[in-house]
Amino acid sequence: MKSQFPNQNQNGETSKVIYDRAVKVLTGGVSRNTIFRNPHPYYAASANGSYIKDIDGIERLDFANNMASLIHGHSHPTIINAVTSQLQKGTAFTMGSEVEVSFAELLTSRSPEFEKIRFMNSGTEAVMTMIKISRAFTGKPKIAKAEGAYHGTYDYAEMSQTANPDNWGEIDKPNAVPVVQGTPQGVMDDVIIYPFNDIERTINLLDQNADQIACVLIDPIPHRVGLFPATNEFVKAIYNWTRKHNALMVFDEVVTYRVNYSGAQKSYTAKPDLTALGKIIGGGFAIGAVAGKSEIMQVLDPRQTFLRHPHSGTFSANPISTTAGRIAMEMYDEQAVLNLNALTKIARKQIEESIKIADIPVSITGVGSMFRLHFKEKAPTSYREAYQTKETKEIINDLIDYLFFEENIIMINTCSCMFATTLTQKNVDRLSEALLNGFNLVKPKIEQLNLTL
Amino acid sequence: MKSQFPNQNQNGETSKVIYDRAVKVLTGGVSRNTIFRNPHPYYAASANGSYIKDIDGIERLDFANNMASLIHGHSHPTIINAVTSQLQKGTAFTMGSEVEVSFAELLTSRSPEFEKIRFMNSGTEAVMTMIKISRAFTGKPKIAKAEGAYHGTYDYAEMSQTANPDNWGEIDKPNAVPVVQGTPQGVMDDVIIYPFNDIERTINLLDQNADQIACVLIDPIPHRVGLFPATNEFVKAIYNWTRKHNALMVFDEVVTYRVNYSGAQKSYTAKPDLTALGKIIGGGFAIGAVAGKSEIMQVLDPRQTFLRHPHSGTFSANPISTTAGRIAMEMYDEQAVLNLNALTKIARKQIEESIKIADIPVSITGVGSMFRLHFKEKAPTSYREAYQTKETKEIINDLIDYLFFEENIIMINTCSCMFATTLTQKNVDRLSEALLNGFNLVKPKIEQLNLTL
Repeated sequence: MKSQFPNQNQNGETSKVIYDRAVKVLTGGVSRNTIFRNPHPYYAASANGSYIKDIDGIERLDFANNMASLIHGHSHPTIINAVTSQLQKGTAFTMGSEVEVSFAELLTSRSPEFEKIRFMNSGTEAVMTMIKISRAFTGKPKIAKAEGAYHGTYDYAEMSQTANPDNWGEIDKPNAVPVVQGTPQGVMDDVIIYPFNDIERTINLLDQNADQIACVLIDPIPHRVGLFPATNEFVKAIYNWTRKHNALMVFDEVVTYRVNYSGAQKSYTAKPDLTALGKIIGGGFAIGAVAGKSEIMQVLDPRQTFLRHPHSGTFSANPISTTAGRIAMEMYDEQAVLNLNALTKIARKQIEESIKIADIPVSITGVGSMFRLHFKEKAPTSYREAYQTKETKEIINDLIDYLFFEENIIMINTCSCMFATTLTQKNVDRLSEALLNGFNLVKPKIEQLNLTL
Repeated sequence: MKSQFPNQNQNGETSKVIYDRAVKVLTGGVSRNTIFRNPHPYYAASANGSYIKDIDGIERLDFANNMASLIHGHSHPTIINAVTSQLQKGTAFTMGSEVEVSFAELLTSRSPEFEKIRFMNSGTEAVMTMIKISRAFTGKPKIAKAEGAYHGTYDYAEMSQTANPDNWGEIDKPNAVPVVQGTPQGVMDDVIIYPFNDIERTINLLDQNADQIACVLIDPIPHRVGLFPATNEFVKAIYNWTRKHNALMVFDEVVTYRVNYSGAQKSYTAKPDLTALGKIIGGGFAIGAVAGKSEIMQVLDPRQTFLRHPHSGTFSANPISTTAGRIAMEMYDEQAVLNLNALTKIARKQIEESIKIADIPVSITGVGSMFRLHFKEKAPTSYREAYQTKETKEIINDLIDYLFFEENIIMINTCSCMFATTLTQKNVDRLSEALLNGFNLVKPKIEQLNLTL
């Protein structure tokens, strides 16, 4: 499938050559499906602040920030200097390093709920470990998670992430739909899928498994569900249920930690027992972490006579990721969070203006420094409402491709932006202007689609 | 518990202060149980080549190399220079980077079995993904793994890693013993535990689950089983069984890839369908990978109409890990492997000499650049034989502590060494001399133990 945008053929020749090599040694020519695009992915040569230059010489303005993981954009000099200096001292030892302690001090100081923390290597590992800790603490096997929510690639955590109308079943009891073929039946049996923000149905489903649930897993602003926040009432209802049934309420804040100085959980009256972290807390390097109540985290404590959850990891808490992460989080202080959220708010306003001018049925959801566009007049309030049909996906792909090839702008392929502190008002103006052009381009297809509905 | 070695109290004051801070914010004061030691871990200040200096000013000779992950020791200048330069260009993008392709080219060129590769962030992720690929390809739910073998922290992969005489059951049908409390019954039901190198019993166990097995997972030289190699006959028997029953034979070479230019698998006539990699291929940075047959790896291909195993990962194939890894593997060429293995062989010979002089019942197992000491006259040939009683563990801890505090030598706490190319004959002399002193120190305890047996 060739793109309809002419720039792609004028440029991208070098990327094409590399991709031709890539398909010979990497499955599908990529190591992350995220970066795949038709007819081939593009390869970065260098990146600085909010700009990435590809090897074909095209510089693009980046609103994806490596899937929300770079809160200070690319190659921030303060982070680079600290990492460069640590490189001379070693990247990993069979010993501790002071920076893992000072970084843990910083993170725990930001959130009273983070009494203790443990580092690992990715968000996937963080969510997996959080679930295993919950089982070890409660002695119960099942978890509950929201339909459509992405929590990494641990099979229990990924159930129903890609559920679709053909397999998602009744909303009163959503099917547990595996993402990967061949997922064992035992995994499906041990995951309860709940409809996000739907208190009555969720509590009903939890009640049906009351004595079996180790934890209820919540992403407070789940990107793939629709990037709208959990209501305070919903979180409170879950919290109360877990208190009654000796279960834990655990948050996946791998993405959402960015929205507030203490993470998205700051906005809720009921607080999670455990929180999974990742992405921005690595300062651009692979990291994951679980933080939460001392009493629960104690299952990991090697000093216990009976160790309920032995846990190590060759690169866990390595001094590169913790050095970069500590500096990134020091710089992402309360004022930086406020400034970034304020700029993102302006961007949303300007994009709403573009939507109005283009006169198309597009809505925006999001919190803090994240937002997502939906090709629907009314903003969705559930995964099933936000679900993109094949036709809608095509329109979004057209828009994303147009922005990439013609406007030199990178957005996440769900039609989302994850802002970084390196973005400026000028960058925001470019975005809303480019989106207006893009909206005008895809408008005929939208009108066609709405006619056939 | 205080150490019996006086140096520990003269030094370690700064490490003690940091650990006092650490216990307030990290569970047990550590983020990896591996680095924990009584009464507190030590903190690295800087590391170079085969030496690590702690923040208390003590420099130690390192034979652990961050649990076998640093094939060129610490802070190798060629790796550091390349990473320092890449830092200026960015650490992670929502785009590809050429180095992931050239690194994949290098690794696939070393092993004809590596037709395609995919990168991830850790050995844990690599083994988990390899198992999920096996299920997706075969459509079957179960795996078989060796009793005692360590394969990271994915629950299916970690079953029976810590099995002990109280729970391991009959050798004809070893129990599937969870490592973490609260592991779901479904996991236990879907993992078959086989006794390593025991062809008859293993084939019997596989036969009992013939139509259910997606893959047989083999670490060809499993460290925790006893660090002795799988026999060629054993691997051949497994291979033949998997061909008959539409199952895969998959290798975990996260640790063992180092023993040969093409990994431990080079020594076997039957080759694995898939291989998990990690540790040394990251050049000191967090990495994991799965490599194997194109036909099987295709389940990951995003270009397929029906994608059987969607897979991404925010930091997968990031240009820091792939840059460091590519250079580390370029330098670890055929000659470097031969040299390293030859030096390790000399070390083993010298240690055997020390054992003879000390006149104690100690045996050595290992392959290539890895070896492990056993406090047994005859080298163990099974996990159950290699299993350390509480008393033996105490003797080993005494020896490891003695080496650490009095001889300034770091070994892995299983009494193992994983060599790096930065080690010299002089370092090996220090090791065998220090071990002789250590053997003499623990000899009375060994004699006491043997008297009571």
